[in-house]
Amino acid sequence: MTSHSHKISRRRLLGSGAAAGAGALAVRGTAAEARPRSRRTRAVDVVVIGGGFAGLTAAWDVMRAGRSVLVLEAQDHVGGRARNLEIAGGEVSERGATFAGPTQNEILALAKEMGVATFPTFAQGENVYYADGERTTYSDAGPLGTAPPDPQIIADLAQTIPRLNDMAKEVPVDAPWKAPRALEWDSQTFETWVRDNSTSPRFRRIVPVATRPIFGAEPRELSLLFVLFYIAASGDGQHPGTFERNFNTRDGAQMFRFQGGSQRIAIELARRLGSRVLLRKPVRRIDQDAQGVTVHSDRLTVTARRAIVTAPPAMAARIEYVPPVRIERDQLTQSLRQGNLTKVTAVYDRPFWRDAGLNGTAVSLNGPVNVAYDDSPEDGSPGVLFGFVGGDEARGFYGRPAAERREAALGSFANYFGPQALAATQYFESTWPGNRWHRGGPVGVAGPGTLVAHGHPLREVVGNLHWAGTETSSYWAGYMDGAVRSGRRAAAEVLAAL
Amino acid sequence: MTSHSHKISRRRLLGSGAAAGAGALAVRGTAAEARPRSRRTRAVDVVVIGGGFAGLTAAWDVMRAGRSVLVLEAQDHVGGRARNLEIAGGEVSERGATFAGPTQNEILALAKEMGVATFPTFAQGENVYYADGERTTYSDAGPLGTAPPDPQIIADLAQTIPRLNDMAKEVPVDAPWKAPRALEWDSQTFETWVRDNSTSPRFRRIVPVATRPIFGAEPRELSLLFVLFYIAASGDGQHPGTFERNFNTRDGAQMFRFQGGSQRIAIELARRLGSRVLLRKPVRRIDQDAQGVTVHSDRLTVTARRAIVTAPPAMAARIEYVPPVRIERDQLTQSLRQGNLTKVTAVYDRPFWRDAGLNGTAVSLNGPVNVAYDDSPEDGSPGVLFGFVGGDEARGFYGRPAAERREAALGSFANYFGPQALAATQYFESTWPGNRWHRGGPVGVAGPGTLVAHGHPLREVVGNLHWAGTETSSYWAGYMDGAVRSGRRAAAEVLAAL
Repeated sequence: MTSHSHKISRRRLLGSGAAAGAGALAVRGTAAEARPRSRRTRAVDVVVIGGGFAGLTAAWDVMRAGRSVLVLEAQDHVGGRARNLEIAGGEVSERGATFAGPTQNEILALAKEMGVATFPTFAQGENVYYADGERTTYSDAGPLGTAPPDPQIIADLAQTIPRLNDMAKEVPVDAPWKAPRALEWDSQTFETWVRDNSTSPRFRRIVPVATRPIFGAEPRELSLLFVLFYIAASGDGQHPGTFERNFNTRDGAQMFRFQGGSQRIAIELARRLGSRVLLRKPVRRIDQDAQGVTVHSDRLTVTARRAIVTAPPAMAARIEYVPPVRIERDQLTQSLRQGNLTKVTAVYDRPFWRDAGLNGTAVSLNGPVNVAYDDSPEDGSPGVLFGFVGGDEARGFYGRPAAERREAALGSFANYFGPQALAATQYFESTWPGNRWHRGGPVGVAGPGTLVAHGHPLREVVGNLHWAGTETSSYWAGYMDGAVRSGRRAAAEVLAAL
Repeated sequence: MTSHSHKISRRRLLGSGAAAGAGALAVRGTAAEARPRSRRTRAVDVVVIGGGFAGLTAAWDVMRAGRSVLVLEAQDHVGGRARNLEIAGGEVSERGATFAGPTQNEILALAKEMGVATFPTFAQGENVYYADGERTTYSDAGPLGTAPPDPQIIADLAQTIPRLNDMAKEVPVDAPWKAPRALEWDSQTFETWVRDNSTSPRFRRIVPVATRPIFGAEPRELSLLFVLFYIAASGDGQHPGTFERNFNTRDGAQMFRFQGGSQRIAIELARRLGSRVLLRKPVRRIDQDAQGVTVHSDRLTVTARRAIVTAPPAMAARIEYVPPVRIERDQLTQSLRQGNLTKVTAVYDRPFWRDAGLNGTAVSLNGPVNVAYDDSPEDGSPGVLFGFVGGDEARGFYGRPAAERREAALGSFANYFGPQALAATQYFESTWPGNRWHRGGPVGVAGPGTLVAHGHPLREVVGNLHWAGTETSSYWAGYMDGAVRSGRRAAAEVLAAL
């Protein structure tokens, strides 16, 4: 492949919107899009719905096994919830999934295979903790990791985290609903459990600071069982999951970043798949009979022996299945709503916070940004900060005028890193709940009763339909690693069945 | 209108499946259905999506105000979640909504206007209570109404119900999220509240016996705030809502039935609307701009100044909106899943239970049928019993072979009314969660956090889009009465705006 065609291909897969500045992610449809025009038909062994990490990985495994495969992606780019945005100087900032960490073996191996190198998340210097106007700094090398050593929360932190980790050990990651106490844990919200098991009001305030970036949800919206599953899933089988591995940078899920941005892994994978990846092909309907499946997208119909649906459950619900999928699966897709999370990013000439001995990580009781990270390229130029605005903070955010949102987000950064943060050269928001094909992020979340009642159809094959996507992963569900794992698993199912 | 055309029209509106025997409700699509064929365009003042009670009522109000209107209904019949099934002798049994009661003023007035008379639900004789093989009978004229006077539950019943009613008084039916303690109540499941506020294990077992038919859900799936809202909504403003009015037959929501079946009201309404009601027109997409809306169904495009969407929130989510509706509304529609409820019905030559002094109402701790009613026509011929199989009982039910399901359901009836119940002449199931256009019933249910975070977009006008359907009603949400109220309200909004 020539370097020219590489460039064209990269542009194609990165998406036409990739170079745009600030603005909504929402891809607005046009009237023409919903109406089939010149309808073509293709026939392959396996059709994959969705060109994110799950879909691309699945397709690649199918391709390497010598089977024919097509990936139908609704948007104009690959990568799903990972999305590069080009900023000044040809560098990129990640609008979606950014980090990887230890035990996320599958995404790390895939990145290596795709020639995408990792580098450590900038971690030299102190973390910032902000609480009601008081700013303190601390090292995440301490026993609490990224969690701040606030004397008002430390006692509750020290007794709840180990207890949650112990409870999580009883949750089978393949079937959380089979935990011995599944019914008890799925009958209550995480909020109820925290209230019953802590004493410090400030501790109760920091819990949503964790659940907002991790789930895009408040503790009251989450089943305790689902939270325990998520902790259990933050490992790889050899290393049992822990809350710390999920939340921390050091030795945790935020430890590594990818050169050129996380979406590059998907773009490289898609290049290898070549013409097997078709963009702008939203799937509306899937028919199946004993012979196989017929997948209808707006301008293309694909027949195949098997289909792998990688859309998040809430979006998979919006596909029409003929005959209908079983009731339990439909109810599951009605129950696992996409989290409410927006990422706000500010670009600066240089990472000025590093001069002050700060590593760019902040944890704050106050919003709109509750958690922030240094997102600068490896060489530190330009300086980039991003923050998560999730759950209740996100809901209050959307209704404000754009200039106010910017001021509020930069105000958070200024609280944490000093007034220079107000002088951003670029500011943009990645509003996943406003994206028509994602409707939220980072993950589909389960309220009480969902896993016990509807968990089992998550991966259950329905005739010729297989299910992937990060929500279906046993390990690192909600992360790029989970997506890759799910793609591998679904491809193996399909290949065994062909 | 001649009697001949009346008959044809009635058949058309009742739906071609109405005379079919037992079988799934699911309307299976055909490949042709999803593909626009000869596309026609119509222009009206107001387009209504959905031909249930909400949509038909709204359209009727619009029509009577002298505005042009079209109703697009996806299925081959009107009535939404109310559906008559013809049984022996030309009588009907109701597959969906059946009853009405005091303070349900709007459905009662509409029925009267449509010439559909009410008659009292058969209530002469004793109720049956069944608990782990022990069968007792009782009068619902006692202080507990339909709730059984089990000594093991009565103390908890006597202290929890008044407390719930009192809490419900603090919930504004127009905005439950504004209740003074909304956040506290929306942070926990109903299950948690019951566990914290009761002592008897048997009482805790009877709570789901109530939530299954009312919500199609287990107490663990429901927000306490949502349950309190539902109680508050069981009134009409002049009479504050109470749990008893919701659950009881005597002076409660099960007090009246409709001659010829509840769907007849919708059929009569649709007859008055005539050609303004179009069947088999599933709406896939709604575009809007400053001028109005363009609504795309499979074979017809309708332009209008305003649209009223009456589909339940979970189904409204599956329509594509261009531009997208606001994030909060999309999140709401992801969160309000349709309950899990199946109705099982048995037909007998005569209502044999009446001979034994029983009124046909049963409440049972054991499944699959937890609550049963006499559903016979007014003249008592034939005898009809129906039962609700909901929540956990429903989930266990679907996977069993048809013969086993029948045996289990009739077995429940036999436990309550004697072995004659096994000799049904007809048996059928109304599996709302398997119906492609309903995906559950009787109502969209809210887990913790939903109302506080996403409640306000329930009725909030989005440009030229208005929202109706029973879920959007302040009073009797989840009932036919709520649907009618919501249609009236949406029509008034639209007429004020035109």
